Amino acid sequence: MKIAHLMFASAALFAALPLSAEEAATEYPSPLEIVAAAKAEEWVAIAPSDLLVMELAADAKGKARRVVIQLMPAPFSQGWVGNIRKLAAAKFWDGTSINRVQDNYVVQWGDATEKKALPERLVIVDAKDYVTPDWPGKDWIFAQADGRPDAYAAAHGFNNGWPLAQGREGLWPVHCYGMVGVGRGMSPDTGSGAELYTVIGHAPRHLDRNIALVGRVIEGIEHLSSLPRGTGPLGFYEKEEERVPINSIRRGDEITNVPVFEYLSTESTSFAAYADARANRRDPFFIKPAGGADICNIPVPVRRKAP
Amino acid sequence: MKIAHLMFASAALFAALPLSAEEAATEYPSPLEIVAAAKAEEWVAIAPSDLLVMELAADAKGKARRVVIQLMPAPFSQGWVGNIRKLAAAKFWDGTSINRVQDNYVVQWGDATEKKALPERLVIVDAKDYVTPDWPGKDWIFAQADGRPDAYAAAHGFNNGWPLAQGREGLWPVHCYGMVGVGRGMSPDTGSGAELYTVIGHAPRHLDRNIALVGRVIEGIEHLSSLPRGTGPLGFYEKEEERVPINSIRRGDEITNVPVFEYLSTESTSFAAYADARANRRDPFFIKPAGGADICNIPVPVRRKAP
Repeated sequence: MKIAHLMFASAALFAALPLSAEEAATEYPSPLEIVAAAKAEEWVAIAPSDLLVMELAADAKGKARRVVIQLMPAPFSQGWVGNIRKLAAAKFWDGTSINRVQDNYVVQWGDATEKKALPERLVIVDAKDYVTPDWPGKDWIFAQADGRPDAYAAAHGFNNGWPLAQGREGLWPVHCYGMVGVGRGMSPDTGSGAELYTVIGHAPRHLDRNIALVGRVIEGIEHLSSLPRGTGPLGFYEKEEERVPINSIRRGDEITNVPVFEYLSTESTSFAAYADARANRRDPFFIKPAGGADICNIPVPVRRKAP
Repeated sequence: MKIAHLMFASAALFAALPLSAEEAATEYPSPLEIVAAAKAEEWVAIAPSDLLVMELAADAKGKARRVVIQLMPAPFSQGWVGNIRKLAAAKFWDGTSINRVQDNYVVQWGDATEKKALPERLVIVDAKDYVTPDWPGKDWIFAQADGRPDAYAAAHGFNNGWPLAQGREGLWPVHCYGMVGVGRGMSPDTGSGAELYTVIGHAPRHLDRNIALVGRVIEGIEHLSSLPRGTGPLGFYEKEEERVPINSIRRGDEITNVPVFEYLSTESTSFAAYADARANRRDPFFIKPAGGADICNIPVPVRRKAP
């Protein structure tokens, strides 16, 4: 497994170049322009079996609301991910609801009654699985934005399409906007996977290594992030009629008419250029490139594959 | 002017103590519990003249929607803040609207027609005012979370109730969730203050030193963050009927029935304990304290003052 090494060029270097506005516009494409220009072979298709498709009840105007989640690949969180596959196959979430919307934090869904029977053979996963030990024979290097790692880990970077952090005990996925995690009670409970949440605010990285991350929303997060905030403690809805019904959650290979999604390989040349541009905005709007970027400010590009 | 020095105690130190769950609960209050226990004299009242009160049109259920903004104090952004005071006094925003809601980014408001006459005597502010030069005779020290500064600046910390970053050229306020900034066109335009936005997603810190920050939302941000996302480029609403009307924006001292707000002094003992707890969650839910925190994950506590 190889980890992309992100070289963040020095902002000072570019500031020293005497470019006119027109030259700068040509010379320095925006992050979106870099992604748009990436070669077809730099994109990686996501297997339908790694998708969860959530159909919410239609909105007040009768419009369908679909949220698509990509499940996290091995070696991360596979105990919980396996449970989630079983829960989807058992149609556990059909008829459950969105129960909590806390501003600048999370949207959470599951069985509000807490009485619905779980499918058989779910596994109990240990908290040690929040972190994956270093792989032997590693040849990867993590990103260090101009020698400025983030506040939560010794190092961070991307591998296989996912944002990761690293410490002495190993590697772990990080709580960026849109990441999906497993709700749980007080530790040492780590949750079954029946109760899930997604991040709708500033990255709550203090949850890293404290809750299992199992995926990320890749389409339709606006159907969750724009829901009315709950007025109860922790943003839970206080009245049953406030809860948004979930019609169904299925794996992408269990249903038809799911488009193919693909992500920009984090090992690609275009991703490296994109990450550098996110850290050093030199497109014409910008006056002062930052010279670095928080890993959660470098969202991995995901799109529908052209038919 | 004094900058709070935040000492982040080592997480390892605490992990080594053999505490039962009950002892831990007593020993390590949560950030919210620390704030709730702060002394009355650690809170600083915000002058009504430093508030902007935005009244949106009532929602679909007829419920009033009020958003309260605290304007940024000297020495930051005072050219734009002065313009904003004049715009409020001239009732410029009455009858304007929320025009843009971009997921995980910003909500923006102002005159959608771009034809409304601005009040007289607005000043044009130079981009150099995005940064305030170091003050001479300084005796402040910035926070360094366990030697892990953030990815966007050499140092960061809090002063006078606001999150700040520091580089060779001086100090600047940072783009955290809820911060309010001045929309502008292509540089070198810096905007008048008539077009404003607030952050509703992961901190877009690449905008620091590229756009003027003039305040923060201290109450009612959910009325903005839960609005439907715009479907046009950059999240602009495509149809006029999607725009949310702004009935009025007034300074807090121009109207009655505005409660008094207060923030927890960032120079107080309780704020230091709160920030440390945000960086090292040891309350019972947590298994692994992070050992550091992004400055935007330490929101300055603001509340209504008890009558």
